[in-house]
Amino acid sequence: MDPNIKGKIVHRLAIAEGHLKKVKEMVEDGAYCLDVIHQSQAVQAALKKVDEGVLHGHLHSCVLKDMHQPEGKKEKFVDEIVELFGKQE
Amino acid sequence: MDPNIKGKIVHRLAIAEGHLKKVKEMVEDGAYCLDVIHQSQAVQAALKKVDEGVLHGHLHSCVLKDMHQPEGKKEKFVDEIVELFGKQE
Amino acid sequence: MDPNIKGKIVHRLAIAEGHLKKVKEMVEDGAYCLDVIHQSQAVQAALKKVDEGVLHGHLHSCVLKDMHQPEGKKEKFVDEIVELFGKQE
Amino acid sequence: MDPNIKGKIVHRLAIAEGHLKKVKEMVEDGAYCLDVIHQSQAVQAALKKVDEGVLHGHLHSCVLKDMHQPEGKKEKFVDEIVELFGKQE
Repeated sequence: MDPNIKGKIVHRLAIAEGHLKKVKEMVEDGAYCLDVIHQSQAVQAALKKVDEGVLHGHLHSCVLKDMHQPEGKKEKFVDEIVELFGKQE
Repeated sequence: MDPNIKGKIVHRLAIAEGHLKKVKEMVEDGAYCLDVIHQSQAVQAALKKVDEGVLHGHLHSCVLKDMHQPEGKKEKFVDEIVELFGKQE
Repeated sequence: MDPNIKGKIVHRLAIAEGHLKKVKEMVEDGAYCLDVIHQSQAVQAALKKVDEGVLHGHLHSCVLKDMHQPEGKKEKFVDEIVELFGKQE
Repeated sequence: MDPNIKGKIVHRLAIAEGHLKKVKEMVEDGAYCLDVIHQSQAVQAALKKVDEGVLHGHLHSCVLKDMHQPEGKKEKFVDEIVELFGKQE
C-alpha cells in the first residue's frame, strides 16, 4: 500500500478507536440508549469508509499492476471481491 | 454476459417480482405488519444475490478479458467498483 | 393500518414493482452490468423506505393503542422489533 | 439499564476495541488488504450485536415500564425507533 494512503488509513482507524472508547464510556455512564446506538453506528460508518479506502488500494494495485497473472489467480481475485461485496451490510 | 448466466439472473428477477407482488397483496389484505417487513426483506436479500451474480460476471469479463485497456479506463473500473461497494447496505 | 397510509404504501410498492421489471428488462437487453446493479440497489432502497413506513404504523398502533396487554405479549413485541433490527442490512 | 446487561455490553465493547486495535496493526504491518477488510467487517458485526442488546434494553424499559407517558413522548419514542431502523445498514 502507498505509504501516504497507509498513513491516512491508520489515522482514521485511530480516530475510530477513540470513538469506540467513547461508546464504552457512554454505556458505563448510563447515557441514553439511543445516543449510544447512534455513536456506535457512527463508528461502523467510519469503518466502512476505511474499508472503501483499503479496497480502492487493493483493486488499484491488482488491476493496474499485478494482472499479468495466471488465470487461476485472476479467478481467485474475482471471487474474493464478490464475496466481500456479499458480506457488506 | 454469458447467455446461461443471463437466463439464471432473469429467472431470479422474475421470482423476486412474484414475491414483491405478494408484499403488495399482503399490505392490501391487512397482513400483520412484521410479516410484511419480513417478506420485503426477503425480496431485498434476493436482489442482493442477483447483484452478486451480475458483479461476478462484470469482474470476470473485465479482469479476464478486457483489461488490455488504457490506464484511464482501468481507473474508472476501480472507482466504479469501490463506489458500488460503498452504496451496498 | 390507517387506510390513507395503506394507500401510500401500496402505491410505493407498485412503483418498486415497475422499477424491478425495468431491472429484468435491462438484463435481457444486455445493459451495462453496473447500471443494472445501481437500478437494483434503488429498488432495495425503495423497499427499505416502505419497511420504515410499515414499522412506523406498527409501533404507532402497538405503543399508542394496544399496550394494555399482558407482560408476555409485550415481551414478544420487544423481541420482534429487535429481531427485525438485526436482520436489517 | 440492568447492571448485569450493562456489564455484558461493556465487556463486548472492550473485545471490539481489541479487535479494532488489531485492524490498525494489520494495516501498519502491511497485511493482505482483504484480510484487513474482513477483520474490520467483523468489528462492525460485533458492534451491530451490541446495538441490538442496547435496543433490547431500551424497548424493554420503555414498553414495559415507562409507557404511562403523555402522547407526545410516545410519538417521539416511535419516531426515534423508526429513524434508528432507517440508519441501520
